[in-house]
This record gives sequence, structure tokens and C-alpha cells, in this order.
Amino acid sequence: MSSYKKPLILVSNDDGIFSPGIQALAEVADEFGDVEIVAPDRQQSAVGHAITVSTPLRSRSFMIDGRFSGQAVSGTPADSVKLAHNQLLNRKPDLVVSGINHGSNAGINILYSGTVSAATEGTILGYPSIAVSCTAFNEDADLSGSKDAARKVIGYVLNHGMPRGVTLNLNVPEGPLKGIKWARQANSRYVEEFEGRIDPHNRSYYWLTGKFQLLDQDDGNDINALEAGFASLTPIQYDLTSYPLLKELENIEL
Amino acid sequence: MSSYKKPLILVSNDDGIFSPGIQALAEVADEFGDVEIVAPDRQQSAVGHAITVSTPLRSRSFMIDGRFSGQAVSGTPADSVKLAHNQLLNRKPDLVVSGINHGSNAGINILYSGTVSAATEGTILGYPSIAVSCTAFNEDADLSGSKDAARKVIGYVLNHGMPRGVTLNLNVPEGPLKGIKWARQANSRYVEEFEGRIDPHNRSYYWLTGKFQLLDQDDGNDINALEAGFASLTPIQYDLTSYPLLKELENIEL
Repeated sequence: MSSYKKPLILVSNDDGIFSPGIQALAEVADEFGDVEIVAPDRQQSAVGHAITVSTPLRSRSFMIDGRFSGQAVSGTPADSVKLAHNQLLNRKPDLVVSGINHGSNAGINILYSGTVSAATEGTILGYPSIAVSCTAFNEDADLSGSKDAARKVIGYVLNHGMPRGVTLNLNVPEGPLKGIKWARQANSRYVEEFEGRIDPHNRSYYWLTGKFQLLDQDDGNDINALEAGFASLTPIQYDLTSYPLLKELENIEL
Repeated sequence: MSSYKKPLILVSNDDGIFSPGIQALAEVADEFGDVEIVAPDRQQSAVGHAITVSTPLRSRSFMIDGRFSGQAVSGTPADSVKLAHNQLLNRKPDLVVSGINHGSNAGINILYSGTVSAATEGTILGYPSIAVSCTAFNEDADLSGSKDAARKVIGYVLNHGMPRGVTLNLNVPEGPLKGIKWARQANSRYVEEFEGRIDPHNRSYYWLTGKFQLLDQDDGNDINALEAGFASLTPIQYDLTSYPLLKELENIEL
């Protein structure tokens, strides 16, 4: 047990330290303990679980509104959490929270998400970790429901802990909170993903675009919950082994 | 069923089109069917499942040794496979293979791996997909065992298929192939991850370094197999839901 009275909560994200979402999440975390923000110094969306290996990282101290101190890191969300754990924090955090992302990280988006990767990195390092995303993309989105949902989940995790190896992925619709539903990651994908264009020099280039497609026909997935107006809460793991298939295949000699 | 006699195999990687590993994998794929290479135009290690959303992608045609044609993409491994599927290939591939990576992608490295992300993206798009990595980092590594292992696994998958949603992650020691063992992803992590330095302007910066630490005490994991001299073959999935924990938690009201 720590001899500190207040828990330390590390706050990170992928939208960078100037995002309204990270400030909203820091405000909620502040109700539970001491807050340190360590996050990318700029927008890092869709970076997945990237880490920076071929250039060095730098960090700069900053203060938001005279309230929250932190470090801005010249790297990815996973870099930020690694660097916080290894170098920047004076004591080990009791909890890692990442977000509030502007845009949902449900279904297949979990794989591409920098927000989720920061929380997953916290889990890998041995801390209970939560990723929080709001479905609205706009910077002036109403995050009141996201804050309420984050407050409930943070309170639960600080009181009850989390098994090692598991990250909680929370997605919340814009506006007031209707409720939180436990859910699995929806089977989903993107279709018609690129728009081809021709530049003024007559060379082709492609913008990533695409339509989200829900393949999951059964209830209980995160997209369903969000479409019904609820927040979704999904325990995810970084052990990617497909145990059912491993069991099925392991006697096949190659 | 396709009306083409020969299967089409899409080859990608994260080390870029000039890597010896991608040529070695294309040579093996060539024994089974038509080969198209679509891969990053430069080194993209440790990018995880990043995708490029804020800049457009470009691709350029290239030819290796007058034998293999392909497209070099100005993006990540996952971008390359998405763009191949959506825009660059004349017909849908029967198989996606990624590698041969110079460096192991076993244990926790699976999460950071661009090589694995290219194969995972193939799986998301509905194709049987295999990631292949050699444990040796040097560019002149002996890939003979990696090629032999890839040949066995490609042959198996083309003959028997793979269930949707599953990617095969193959890691192979340098040198001749001793055998292939089915294995789970080892529970592992990095410790002492950064080396702090002071630049000539008296500002601190950090290099990512760190020691790999195996936490897994039980047999049957990928690191064990590699340490015993065998190739490891792990079925991995992109549904990250922890179903055991979801079942345990889903009646808790938040």
C-alpha cells in the first residue's frame, strides 16, 4: 500500500494537451486524487499503438489554467505513458486515464485508436487503465455525459481495482448520460475507404475516407449500446492470442 | 470461387520495399501463385496499427530485379494493405503475407509491430493473412529457415483456409528451420525503457531502449519456442474483448 493519502492519476490522450477533452478528464480525475497530465504535444489521432524508436523524445512542462500541471511529449500516446512511468512522474500512478477523445473508439476503431493505446500501455505497465471517448468529433461537444460516465468508472476502478492485463474502454454519446452498458467490441469494418484524386501535376493521390459498416448482428456490442443512446464499457486485453483456434490447431504438424 | 487458376498473394511489410526480407517473402509466395507487392516506401517499424488520416497517400510503381512488380505507398503498413485492397489491385488477393521482418514480433512486441498490423489489416478486410518475422535484426541475416517456415504456413493456409478474424503470426530464428511450434503470445514487457541525455543546449531528451522481460512462467508461449530454437506460430485476433472479464462484470451496475 502507498503511504500517500490521495491516489495519483496519470491523464493522457491522443488529441494533445490543448484538447478540451483532456482538460475535462483532468477535472473529473481531480475529484479523486492528484492529477498529472503527460500527453502528446500535438494531435496524434489514428496512430494505433505506435512508439518512437528512431528519434529521441523530448518533454516540456506546462500548466493549464493554473490548475493542472503536466508534461507535453514530442511523441505518440504510448510514448507519453511509457515516459511518464519511466522518467517523468515522482511516484507511480494508481490509475491511468486517457481521453476524453473527440470521436468514438468503438468497434474496429479500437485498433486504430491512440486514445486506447495510451490506456493499453498503462495496462502493460501494470496500472489499472481506462480509455474515454465521446462520439462527437467537434471541439465544442457537450462532454457532460462523458464526464459523468468517466466519474462512475474511475470511482469503480479506484474502489475495486482491475485484473492485470485488462483495460476498460468507455465510449459515451454527446450530451447528458443515459446510462452505461457493458458491451463487447462490435464486429465491424470500413468500406469504400479511399477517394482518388488527381493533383495539378497530373499525379494521382488518395484520401482515406470510408463508411463504417457494422457486421455484428447480435445485441451486446458497443456500437449497439451507443446507437441506443447509452455509454458502452468494454474490457479489452492486449493478449491477442485466439485461444479457441490455438486449441483447434495445436495438434496439426507443419 | 475465382476463375483464375493461380492464387493472388499480396505481399507487404513494415521495413519498406527495399528490405531484403520482403524480397525473400515474395520469392516464397511466387512458388504458390501471382505476387503483388504493396508496401511502405520507407522504414515504418514500431508504427503499430497506425493509419494516415490527415495527409493524402501516394503510390509509385516499382519492379524488383525484373521479377516482382509492386507499388510503394507513402504511408504505414496498414495503409498499404487498405490501399491495395481498395484501389491498387486488379483482383482480390487470396492471401496477404507481411514480412519477412528483420526482428522478432513475439510477446508484447506484437502490439507495436507494423509487420503484424499489415497482416491484421488483411484479416479485417476478409483475407487469410500471415505475418512473418525473423529474430535477427541485421539486413544480411540468414533467412533460409524463415523462408522454409513461411512456405509451410502459406501452403497450409492456401489448402485449408483460415477462420475469419484470425491472423497467423509466425516468428523464426535465424538459420535453418528446426521446426514450427504452435504457441500463445507470451506475457512479457519492457523495463528500464529510456536513456536520458542532455543536449549541447542543456536540454534533456530521451532515447527509447529497454530490456525485454518475460513474465510468462508456463510452457507453450512464443518466446519459449524461439528460445528453444523453434519457429513459433500464433493465431491472433483483432477482437480485443476480454470475454471472461465481460462475463464477470456485466451484472455490475455503474
